[in-house]
Amino acid sequence: MLAVAVEEARAGLAEGGIPIGAALFGRDGTLLGRGHNRRVQDGDASTHAETAAFRDAGRRPGYRDTIMVTTLSPCWYCAGLVRQFGIPSVVIGEARTFSGGHDWLAEHGVAITIVDDAECAELMTAFVAARPELWSEDIGSE
Amino acid sequence: MLAVAVEEARAGLAEGGIPIGAALFGRDGTLLGRGHNRRVQDGDASTHAETAAFRDAGRRPGYRDTIMVTTLSPCWYCAGLVRQFGIPSVVIGEARTFSGGHDWLAEHGVAITIVDDAECAELMTAFVAARPELWSEDIGSE
Repeated sequence: MLAVAVEEARAGLAEGGIPIGAALFGRDGTLLGRGHNRRVQDGDASTHAETAAFRDAGRRPGYRDTIMVTTLSPCWYCAGLVRQFGIPSVVIGEARTFSGGHDWLAEHGVAITIVDDAECAELMTAFVAARPELWSEDIGSE
Repeated sequence: MLAVAVEEARAGLAEGGIPIGAALFGRDGTLLGRGHNRRVQDGDASTHAETAAFRDAGRRPGYRDTIMVTTLSPCWYCAGLVRQFGIPSVVIGEARTFSGGHDWLAEHGVAITIVDDAECAELMTAFVAARPELWSEDIGSE
């Protein structure tokens, strides 16, 4: 499942954007939605990878049977999305380059899996080194 | 400032949507962005009022000098947005019909003002009574 999120992250990078991707799956492995950060592409500060995947999945009565997969530890905004909508499981590519709200989600009963994937970490490490000001903007770190 | 958010909530209701509105202001009172919940209008589960106002404000290097004004207590998703981007102050129309993450924000240093505005409460009370399933969907409450 992480492969879909990584494809999204790479697509974002190819567009000149921030290389973070995500996908929402059903528990049975069905892909429900996928997307990537669109700050640069759309001038949209509100579309992080997880929100893009969530939006792409359309309207749903609930999320009990879903899994959020993301290349990077979810920030507070995206962690809040997971908590509010009761997404029970989050698979995280890596939490080395940025550690967001995944411990808080775990405290609130969300199953957290950190893959510690080398490609995810390399994508972000290279991006943060190349565009530190853009990364700071994306996480509201003045 | 709450009047702008209430206008947005009324506009959402008039469009057949969920009557929650928000606006992002500068500390000096400048309106930076405004919007309302767009779940029904756009089939977009990711656009709550606060995210709509945040998006409408465009890309910014930081939010230290901003105030988020919303007709209803922010859910975890929107509370996460406020925390992640360091919005220091939130003005809330009412927290009677729904109480989200505002206490958590206060614990993390965000200045919270609850106006307890009768019109905000009436908009939501009437809406929740008329469309309980739509309200449940909007907050992921199966």
